[in-house]
Amino acid sequence: MNRIKLGMIGGGTGAFIGDAHRRASRICNEYELLGGVFDVDYERSKEFAKQEGISPERCYPDIDKFIKGELALPDNKRIQAVSIVTPNHLHYPFAKKLIENGFNVICEKPMTMTVEQAEDLARLVEKNKIVFALTHTYTGYPMVRQMKEMIKSGILGTIQRVDAQYYQGWINSLIHGNESRITGVWRLKPEYAGVSSCMGDIGVHAFNLIEYTTGLKIKKVLSDLNSVKDNIELDLDGTVLLRFDNNIKGVIRSTQVAAGEENNLRIGVYGSKASLKWAQEDPNYLYLLSDTEPTKVFKPAHTYNSEFAEASHVMPSGHPEGIYEALANIYKGVAKAIKGEKTYDGEYPTVYDGVRGMKFVHSVVASNKNGNTWVEL
Amino acid sequence: MNRIKLGMIGGGTGAFIGDAHRRASRICNEYELLGGVFDVDYERSKEFAKQEGISPERCYPDIDKFIKGELALPDNKRIQAVSIVTPNHLHYPFAKKLIENGFNVICEKPMTMTVEQAEDLARLVEKNKIVFALTHTYTGYPMVRQMKEMIKSGILGTIQRVDAQYYQGWINSLIHGNESRITGVWRLKPEYAGVSSCMGDIGVHAFNLIEYTTGLKIKKVLSDLNSVKDNIELDLDGTVLLRFDNNIKGVIRSTQVAAGEENNLRIGVYGSKASLKWAQEDPNYLYLLSDTEPTKVFKPAHTYNSEFAEASHVMPSGHPEGIYEALANIYKGVAKAIKGEKTYDGEYPTVYDGVRGMKFVHSVVASNKNGNTWVEL
Amino acid sequence: MNRIKLGMIGGGTGAFIGDAHRRASRICNEYELLGGVFDVDYERSKEFAKQEGISPERCYPDIDKFIKGELALPDNKRIQAVSIVTPNHLHYPFAKKLIENGFNVICEKPMTMTVEQAEDLARLVEKNKIVFALTHTYTGYPMVRQMKEMIKSGILGTIQRVDAQYYQGWINSLIHGNESRITGVWRLKPEYAGVSSCMGDIGVHAFNLIEYTTGLKIKKVLSDLNSVKDNIELDLDGTVLLRFDNNIKGVIRSTQVAAGEENNLRIGVYGSKASLKWAQEDPNYLYLLSDTEPTKVFKPAHTYNSEFAEASHVMPSGHPEGIYEALANIYKGVAKAIKGEKTYDGEYPTVYDGVRGMKFVHSVVASNKNGNTWVEL
Amino acid sequence: MNRIKLGMIGGGTGAFIGDAHRRASRICNEYELLGGVFDVDYERSKEFAKQEGISPERCYPDIDKFIKGELALPDNKRIQAVSIVTPNHLHYPFAKKLIENGFNVICEKPMTMTVEQAEDLARLVEKNKIVFALTHTYTGYPMVRQMKEMIKSGILGTIQRVDAQYYQGWINSLIHGNESRITGVWRLKPEYAGVSSCMGDIGVHAFNLIEYTTGLKIKKVLSDLNSVKDNIELDLDGTVLLRFDNNIKGVIRSTQVAAGEENNLRIGVYGSKASLKWAQEDPNYLYLLSDTEPTKVFKPAHTYNSEFAEASHVMPSGHPEGIYEALANIYKGVAKAIKGEKTYDGEYPTVYDGVRGMKFVHSVVASNKNGNTWVEL
Repeated sequence: MNRIKLGMIGGGTGAFIGDAHRRASRICNEYELLGGVFDVDYERSKEFAKQEGISPERCYPDIDKFIKGELALPDNKRIQAVSIVTPNHLHYPFAKKLIENGFNVICEKPMTMTVEQAEDLARLVEKNKIVFALTHTYTGYPMVRQMKEMIKSGILGTIQRVDAQYYQGWINSLIHGNESRITGVWRLKPEYAGVSSCMGDIGVHAFNLIEYTTGLKIKKVLSDLNSVKDNIELDLDGTVLLRFDNNIKGVIRSTQVAAGEENNLRIGVYGSKASLKWAQEDPNYLYLLSDTEPTKVFKPAHTYNSEFAEASHVMPSGHPEGIYEALANIYKGVAKAIKGEKTYDGEYPTVYDGVRGMKFVHSVVASNKNGNTWVEL
Repeated sequence: MNRIKLGMIGGGTGAFIGDAHRRASRICNEYELLGGVFDVDYERSKEFAKQEGISPERCYPDIDKFIKGELALPDNKRIQAVSIVTPNHLHYPFAKKLIENGFNVICEKPMTMTVEQAEDLARLVEKNKIVFALTHTYTGYPMVRQMKEMIKSGILGTIQRVDAQYYQGWINSLIHGNESRITGVWRLKPEYAGVSSCMGDIGVHAFNLIEYTTGLKIKKVLSDLNSVKDNIELDLDGTVLLRFDNNIKGVIRSTQVAAGEENNLRIGVYGSKASLKWAQEDPNYLYLLSDTEPTKVFKPAHTYNSEFAEASHVMPSGHPEGIYEALANIYKGVAKAIKGEKTYDGEYPTVYDGVRGMKFVHSVVASNKNGNTWVEL
Repeated sequence: MNRIKLGMIGGGTGAFIGDAHRRASRICNEYELLGGVFDVDYERSKEFAKQEGISPERCYPDIDKFIKGELALPDNKRIQAVSIVTPNHLHYPFAKKLIENGFNVICEKPMTMTVEQAEDLARLVEKNKIVFALTHTYTGYPMVRQMKEMIKSGILGTIQRVDAQYYQGWINSLIHGNESRITGVWRLKPEYAGVSSCMGDIGVHAFNLIEYTTGLKIKKVLSDLNSVKDNIELDLDGTVLLRFDNNIKGVIRSTQVAAGEENNLRIGVYGSKASLKWAQEDPNYLYLLSDTEPTKVFKPAHTYNSEFAEASHVMPSGHPEGIYEALANIYKGVAKAIKGEKTYDGEYPTVYDGVRGMKFVHSVVASNKNGNTWVEL
Repeated sequence: MNRIKLGMIGGGTGAFIGDAHRRASRICNEYELLGGVFDVDYERSKEFAKQEGISPERCYPDIDKFIKGELALPDNKRIQAVSIVTPNHLHYPFAKKLIENGFNVICEKPMTMTVEQAEDLARLVEKNKIVFALTHTYTGYPMVRQMKEMIKSGILGTIQRVDAQYYQGWINSLIHGNESRITGVWRLKPEYAGVSSCMGDIGVHAFNLIEYTTGLKIKKVLSDLNSVKDNIELDLDGTVLLRFDNNIKGVIRSTQVAAGEENNLRIGVYGSKASLKWAQEDPNYLYLLSDTEPTKVFKPAHTYNSEFAEASHVMPSGHPEGIYEALANIYKGVAKAIKGEKTYDGEYPTVYDGVRGMKFVHSVVASNKNGNTWVEL
């Protein structure tokens, strides 16, 4: 096996998202992690590298040295793809440098802090002809892919309504303690989190899931956001009205302060003939509803599924695969793209998904600021 | 037992809602149906009366004769309470006459066609000191009542978000056939249905459930409605942003064109300490979520429930009671009120709930007409 | 409407099962309760009669006076059907007298204390040509009836396995308190409960559900029962291996000491082509599983259901009907039979279901006593 | 990181179970796969090794050469642990050789074909002081471990009943086709599958889960097995009555012919104070039932869980981990044991679990052969 040589920026000791990326890369078994910049503190970074069995000379003190060092290596040694799992505000500058130097990039979400940055990355990706993936992990679930394929097949008829939510509760316990806790949370500070907390961090997943599964584009949004407490600058909660072409309407609801909610992302797409519903916490169940037939429950590992869905899991039916396998499916898609193999439509989210996401978040924030009026994406 | 003497306007052969009212009155065993005007066609009305075992002389040709006939009877024979289960546009004129003549009224929803009519009825109810109930049936479920009591107890802390939906699909199959089907559906015609189809018929239930369980009042709404097809005048689908006092926000989603959805009314109330979720199609389960403890599932017939919830079912735990029993609980509350017994707070919806509902529907329609702007209730 | 004149033996103040029968009779609206013997204490009986609005002269001091008094009335006044809702050991003698005097009977479960008594009633029912119903209430649920019809249609192929359970927990809290509580529970005493507690009271429902839905007859049983504590004479828990014709096998599990279980009756029937699963606490969902197609969820009020299932509910889809409506469906079937109308196969359980049930309970107890060996029914 | 040097016997191209073991070893990130015998066909084995990036010289033609070759390597190069993922009948001879030569072993289930072989392995493990793990994968789920810990804490009071099932349907479609399909399935042939199909392959998982979670030992069994068709030699279906010490009773039900069932393993443990229920297809939900409190739903990633459960998952709450992560948890436990670190009680199943399992399967088969009589384990 010719595993793809993988680098990583960020994701050192204690960073669960970096760990998730590494696991995903190992699960799909298409990568070998060879180097990176794992921590701003070089000593901690080296310690982490040692622990992961990475050669000390490929643990670099910063991204510039990483690029320089790797470019100095011969083609067959050089890292081919780099996962960016740093804090949000560093995604853009690091991605930019990596793309400009010809590295394929797997970037955590959000891709950038502004729409302009996102569009800049899109231009750079095109110019440099590299593979760029944004880890909207939920698109890696087999039943999400099945949903996409079923909608594409026309089984729903004309789409009439789209409804997605992403409810979490974990910020709730932070904001109802003492003030110092609020100020200590980077997600609540614009300089690190960008213009939005709830919509930027999770609402955008609901947005992406809608465009991913339906193939429709959201044209404009009207939002009503809530920062819940006076001393919080960013939204922790909100509802967004959606307008698609052909006057199709929809709604996204998202909150980080729904006590006891864990990771309750769900989507319903309602068509003239049938409807499809899926929920992230029970990812191996997809429901097809119609007015005339019993509700049908689709699960992975069945011949009734699409080829794409069936290519997105391994175990026989009834063996639940989970979130790591979803991310591994995206890593696998990226690997196929890097190797020049044919990928399924939607096998990994691209830089254009990142541009769409940034437009969504910024439009939503603008709509709220404008007094809940329609803003085009 | 001194059963309350019950009359009924509408609800003859083939009317499922009239049948539901009669069943409810029999289940709670506090009523005896003695007369009414069951059909505009007097012959059909008499036939129905005969079939139900009602004396022919108390089957009246119209409401005026009903009132006159009953008033002519001595107190101990006269019908005390009248259920109005006619088409929507007749609720108001019939209720008005009945109230003005001292009859207690149990009125199907929607109470009236306009806010003015609703307020008129409220004035009349006050003036005539009768018992008036509006059948927001879902408030009769034990676990809805338990939810109300738990929120009242403060278990959720400060409410931060309220989210309710009512999804149906049955109109879907009507509007995607030939045109004549559309024109044949009275719910789609303003003269019979009022200013709204979806919001007026079902969205208002979600509205009522919110105000019922939380005790909060919605101050203003911003709506986005959809009539789905060009030749349909009324909304079949929509989303409504909600604003309460103290900047609490919420959302109601409602549709009649979600293919395959049956009667999917659900509500979530999210507080600073905990959340509560309930769904109508599985009415005997109430979920209490918190960030620090396992989700708790409340069911009827347990000592951990409030007195009001426990008074709202009969069978031991695990014996599902359903929608008829919910309506019977409301009939029971009305009976208690008529008999001058102490009722629980919320044991039946009142004329003021009807006023609130009308304000909601009209505000929602106005907001949509105004280009999705905020409208005060 | 010519309502059937109904009498009741037992079921006075505080008896929830008598109340359930009366509600059921009112829900289906085919009966009028006119008299009975509601309590062994005649004063309490009369008080109850008064409260129910029953003429004092038709509240009789005992069953013999009831029979004599009613027989003295002219045909068009006389009670036609009698519900027996007394303690278990009185079912047989009272049913016998009523049948012998030409009354139709609706008998609570268990029908008798012994197999001989059950067979005696069967002979008497045949001889006297009356309608006799045993209230295996769960057979009144629309989806149980749908299950029966689907199996009859052959959709499962050859049945290969049958699995039913009935788990409750309520006796648990009784037996782990002080001794006096045990001795105070009539269900734990052979003289009142018969030879079995768990199997006689609830296991037999699982048995009945199997024979009802599959149309198969259980030929022999091998049981392993448990009285849990040394000072308890009857079984509170057990498992029963089942043998049908053609070597088909199955199992019934039942317990009254599963802490926290409410009324968890469920059944799975597994065929060569497909399987069906149903659970009593969520009675409006029926699951059809196959190896090649998505699981299908059947619900009431859909054209895809059988005529019998559709005749067994009233409300549109998504309005949950419950246990009272199930019992009302049985009462309705009995009314049709009394009026000589054509009934569906299985519209009410008969005296032969009672004979089968008694044979099951006694065989199960014998098998356990014999050291867990096979006993023929 | 000092990854443990891993070898593998079996598991080459097309073998899903070998793939699962490799994924698990990579997910927990404690292993490096360095060599093995991947296929009986040496050419195919080498091809597979190449594809996995394994040095050709460590792809051996057979187990003897594997042992010889590895023993020839210095300590710091030599493979330390070997996963056995061959067909069933080879588990024992290969495990024996590996243990005798000092290799730690991770063995797929069933451990052996006979009880004697199992006991032989147990003796060898003791004598050679190696780490031996049997992959009862389901014990790796966080909520199974939580269940074990909660029962150990005494929260259930005295256990009164244990009920486990493992239902699959996949053999159903094999046996109802033409005869050649039956004869082609190795699981149906005693020489490859051992004395049992259903009980040996999956019933034993239910058995293991019972002993794992409760800490109780099953003393004797009485079984009723079914081979469903005349020309099938082994059981495809069956029920097993269980007897523990103190007269505690239980039941295992298992089938491979329940059409449409996928991997429906579930367990309920019922105590005098409370009950616990868990199901494999929704592994992240654990239900605690009691007669006096609402049912509580435990999920991973919460502070209310035991330390052991919390050490068995990585992602924040609401991110479903699945079967691969469960297996990875077992691999992690083995790694800790090999490295001499302290493991949790039950962090991986041992050779003694294998002995117990073999005793269970053989006792169950004997009981059925003896005419459904009790057989001691």
